[in-house]
Amino acid sequence: MAVLFKSNSDSAARWAQEIRKLVPDVDFRIWPDYGDPADIKFALVWGMPIGEFHKFPNLRCIASLGAGVDHIFRDPDLPEGVAITRLVDPWMAEAMSEYVLLQVLRFHRQGDTYARFQAEKHWETLPFPDTAQRRVGILGLGVLGEDAAVKLARHGFPTAGWSRRAKQIDGVECFHGAEGLKPFLNRTDILCCLLPLTPETEDIIDAKLLTELPKGAYIVNSARGRHVVDEDLIAAMDAGHIAGAALDVFRQEPLPAEHPYWTHPKVLLTPHAAALTNPRTAGQQVAENIRRVLAGEAPLHQVDRAAGY
Amino acid sequence: MAVLFKSNSDSAARWAQEIRKLVPDVDFRIWPDYGDPADIKFALVWGMPIGEFHKFPNLRCIASLGAGVDHIFRDPDLPEGVAITRLVDPWMAEAMSEYVLLQVLRFHRQGDTYARFQAEKHWETLPFPDTAQRRVGILGLGVLGEDAAVKLARHGFPTAGWSRRAKQIDGVECFHGAEGLKPFLNRTDILCCLLPLTPETEDIIDAKLLTELPKGAYIVNSARGRHVVDEDLIAAMDAGHIAGAALDVFRQEPLPAEHPYWTHPKVLLTPHAAALTNPRTAGQQVAENIRRVLAGEAPLHQVDRAAGY
Ligand SMILES: NC(=O)c1ccc[n+]([C@@H]2O[C@H](COP(=O)([O-])OP(=O)(O)OC[C@H]3O[C@@H](n4cnc5c(N)ncnc54)[C@H](OP(=O)(O)O)[C@@H]3O)[C@@H](O)[C@H]2O)c1
Ligand SMILES: NC(=O)c1ccc[n+]([C@@H]2O[C@H](COP(=O)([O-])OP(=O)(O)OC[C@H]3O[C@@H](n4cnc5c(N)ncnc54)[C@H](OP(=O)(O)O)[C@@H]3O)[C@@H](O)[C@H]2O)c1
Repeated sequence: MAVLFKSNSDSAARWAQEIRKLVPDVDFRIWPDYGDPADIKFALVWGMPIGEFHKFPNLRCIASLGAGVDHIFRDPDLPEGVAITRLVDPWMAEAMSEYVLLQVLRFHRQGDTYARFQAEKHWETLPFPDTAQRRVGILGLGVLGEDAAVKLARHGFPTAGWSRRAKQIDGVECFHGAEGLKPFLNRTDILCCLLPLTPETEDIIDAKLLTELPKGAYIVNSARGRHVVDEDLIAAMDAGHIAGAALDVFRQEPLPAEHPYWTHPKVLLTPHAAALTNPRTAGQQVAENIRRVLAGEAPLHQVDRAAGY
Repeated sequence: MAVLFKSNSDSAARWAQEIRKLVPDVDFRIWPDYGDPADIKFALVWGMPIGEFHKFPNLRCIASLGAGVDHIFRDPDLPEGVAITRLVDPWMAEAMSEYVLLQVLRFHRQGDTYARFQAEKHWETLPFPDTAQRRVGILGLGVLGEDAAVKLARHGFPTAGWSRRAKQIDGVECFHGAEGLKPFLNRTDILCCLLPLTPETEDIIDAKLLTELPKGAYIVNSARGRHVVDEDLIAAMDAGHIAGAALDVFRQEPLPAEHPYWTHPKVLLTPHAAALTNPRTAGQQVAENIRRVLAGEAPLHQVDRAAGY
């Protein structure tokens, strides 16, 4: 019984080494050289071609190489009865919260305007911003969103979050569901998206949502590119309603050279670099799930097929 | 007995309002319309002309409108027997630590390189930086330096600091004195300066100091421009030894239009905006010192004339 590995961004050699250290007798096969498809019981993947999972008659578990599973649910024809798991890695949450904190601090401290002033050789000290008055809001209060919210609140920003089901987090104002969205947006000066990509959250950052934010609000998106309707965000920035956006993820990656984000004066972009899957910290969890699946047990961190995350 | 106010950057009206709220019977006079110099017992100042303090025969206290007193000690001929005080304001420490954290996070997360990549429409994800491996060092462990060091350490950076006298701070490696400087620099990847400006600390960031930092180190200076030998810093950046600098303070402010910092690709500059004196939070302390001086008592937060800070 073998483990299949397929990724277009993670190192197969590095993962093979990590998994072999933890599960010494593992039969680790790298797509597309997987031998007899009937051998594959566990698939560790990022960006598997659509329709491919059906080739493995004995597949028991599809494990995402990231926190998100949208790359798996893209496949409209996933085999039934196969567990789908994702990574839940404290190291990844720290990396993501660090990215979010950096982008929030940069907008809060007028880093975008001061960069423009420097380019213009213009010396002008702006009115000093007050941390206790800058309201940050996080879309998504899961493993990543909650960690970021708690850290932003601890720094001193009045912080709120929005999730599907009701939540309680010390020091964070929690909103949820369709009715909770408008009041959450109305009080948010810097909006950070840490939602999973599902049919419900696709295109959520559109003209309608942006209108509910106060004038001068900022956007930070480090979840998925498909959460954002790019034309709507650009129009809102050009109209002066949205003051700026820090974007780490895009509908198409690498971002095409002709995309207006590259040169938009209000956009700061990073190339899907907010957080990264680290085999050293995530390997343990994957190894444990391989052991469980080979022993006929249920793997940890399964996602809910109906909810899509 | 009157209070004299003189500043080229703080609002006289705002300070008069704050002080009158706290010391209702105060006689608040604004330079240069101070009336009879013999009335002035307390001077609240930022950037008094040199030689001016000698005009007030009954002056008992010179209170700085900032954390630094270098603008007072510039005057080689300060009257003897006059107490010199500075602001010690938790709000200012929070603002400064926020600035330092932002600049450290930006360099740590390769924000300088990603900004260049965006300008070049170049998509490339760099090796992921490890917070636990990025060693931050703070020159100066006073009110501002200690607060910044503790927060950087809490975020997860291995953090050290350097002061004149030996110190102990939980979670921060403390170095001190001339012998402590070299080992402190040798282990520092991002060096932040929060020293007061004194004859000992002027020009401290020179070619010799920069050589002791590891190749690829970054500089953050939000103390005073005169701590840095500009030509040495520029030469070290051009030689590739120093990877970048975030500078908030300059020898001459506003920074002259012809200064190379404005356009240097490795410099991010802000116009003395790291932290600001806030009358709302600092007023209490100034009012208390006015009361004390008018009552013939010693004011709080006096600086040491011999040490110069
Ligand atoms: N850019 C990068 O480098 C990077 C790295 C890692 C992850 N990510 C992205 O970050 C996403 C979040 O990761 P995570 O581990 O925090 O996920 P998670 O633990 O599953 O949390 C998802 C959160 O979103 C909420 N949510 C989902 N659907 C919703 C809806 N329709 N309405 C309102 N709230 C909804 C959930 O609400 P409930 O609490 O009610 O379930 C939950 O709070 C991943 O899916 C991935 O796309 C990006
Ligand atoms: N850019 C801005 O917006 C802004 C705003 C506020 C303040 N500042 C600057 O920040 C400076 C620091 O403020 P602070 O309130 O933290 O001052 P502070 O409490 O007086 O602390 C000064 C620190 O520097 C150390 N030090 C002084 N001389 C030294 C020397 N020769 N060698 C080694 N260490 C030395 C002191 O050592 P000991 O602990 O041994 O005394 C102390 O740790 C101010 O003086 C001001 O110039 C800038």
